[in-house]
Amino acid sequence: VNLILLEPGEIDAEARAVVDGIRAAHVREVLKAGPGQQVRVGMVDGPHGVGTVVSVSDASVTLQCGFSSVTPERPRVDLLLALPRPKVMRRLWAQLAALGVGRIMLTNAERVERNYFDTHLLAPGGYRPLLIEGLQQARDTRVPIVSVHRQLRVFVEDGLDEDCPSALRLIADPAAQQSPRAAVGDRYGGRVLLAIGPEGGWNDFERELFAAHGFRQVGMGSRTLRTDTAGIALLALVHAALA
Amino acid sequence: VNLILLEPGEIDAEARAVVDGIRAAHVREVLKAGPGQQVRVGMVDGPHGVGTVVSVSDASVTLQCGFSSVTPERPRVDLLLALPRPKVMRRLWAQLAALGVGRIMLTNAERVERNYFDTHLLAPGGYRPLLIEGLQQARDTRVPIVSVHRQLRVFVEDGLDEDCPSALRLIADPAAQQSPRAAVGDRYGGRVLLAIGPEGGWNDFERELFAAHGFRQVGMGSRTLRTDTAGIALLALVHAALA
Repeated sequence: VNLILLEPGEIDAEARAVVDGIRAAHVREVLKAGPGQQVRVGMVDGPHGVGTVVSVSDASVTLQCGFSSVTPERPRVDLLLALPRPKVMRRLWAQLAALGVGRIMLTNAERVERNYFDTHLLAPGGYRPLLIEGLQQARDTRVPIVSVHRQLRVFVEDGLDEDCPSALRLIADPAAQQSPRAAVGDRYGGRVLLAIGPEGGWNDFERELFAAHGFRQVGMGSRTLRTDTAGIALLALVHAALA
Repeated sequence: VNLILLEPGEIDAEARAVVDGIRAAHVREVLKAGPGQQVRVGMVDGPHGVGTVVSVSDASVTLQCGFSSVTPERPRVDLLLALPRPKVMRRLWAQLAALGVGRIMLTNAERVERNYFDTHLLAPGGYRPLLIEGLQQARDTRVPIVSVHRQLRVFVEDGLDEDCPSALRLIADPAAQQSPRAAVGDRYGGRVLLAIGPEGGWNDFERELFAAHGFRQVGMGSRTLRTDTAGIALLALVHAALA
């Protein structure tokens, strides 16, 4: 935890917040911060700030907060991800939030098993704590917008233009010659939408669907990676290309 | 599995190999390959090749193998990694092998807990199957050379020049301004040695030790990442810079 994130509802009219659980334990045991000391805080989907410790008990920590007037921008990369199996998705939430994504769009695909959608990890109560964990690690406040799309074609044809207007559209393909850096170019200032397929890849219909909607193939050389490894690696490459 | 790796000892004088377990199941159930059909094979630390299915039983698959005369080069990146906690290290082995590393040097550091070294995952019997899993995923045959160093200073002062001669030495640092791409430059043809610290970072003594031995700091922007996420992201960035 490198930042203590507070939900707006946790901050009272006098800018005080009482935190418990992992956040309180972090202040007490890792930061070892006592009354009068300051810790980094952030408001969920709001600005960064500083929290001055007012009191510490075994169960909770009270912080007097002051916030910047500036809310950070959302990360400039959005991710369209064929839903991986629950075990992999569970690990990915925090890592994707830490690397920085504006949106996470989880989709169906021929090679996504139907029962992957039957997990509590696709409900906000399941994934939101994991996203917050990643944001607290990476010191960001912007929670990725998550959406689940069981009909890939309908979403790509009808939903994507609205959700991700005017983004550079890239699709990961092990056979692609072009690197993310080459595809993004040197001074691109806009957003990137990155599509990552299931283990086993997209089928031909899906590939053509993406191609018909402006997605350009990018690759990382000849090594075939697992979805989670590829996702992390490609996100890092796209962020580096945008930096 | 995108390649079936065979230990040299599994291949008999007539170039036949009998595989069982996951590899046999892969031929039978994923590739659905019957007698006469060909599958990609590789010899551990040796060449790629083609295996023609001779026979398939419930328990095993017999392959008649032909190998290329060329053994692939080791990946050009070596990793010096402050030993993460066992749960994280367990997940990393296959991912590091899939991304491509020549050596994995696991070291001590002030912020590495002593008991992290007490895991069967640091014995070849513990990690080798995980490395092979990653190589079979990425279609590589070269098993990373693994070494464990409980005395960081002794290793950096006395061991590193011999194990990693003439490599460009980089150390990940969240505060560093320089990207891996800028540090590697445009046409670097040699090897890179990348050092990644523990959760919580290297201490000042360790930082100075690395600086005194030619390590240059590289970063990925302002987000602080978990060791495993940072390792995957940085390896991908260094590989991209070398491509």
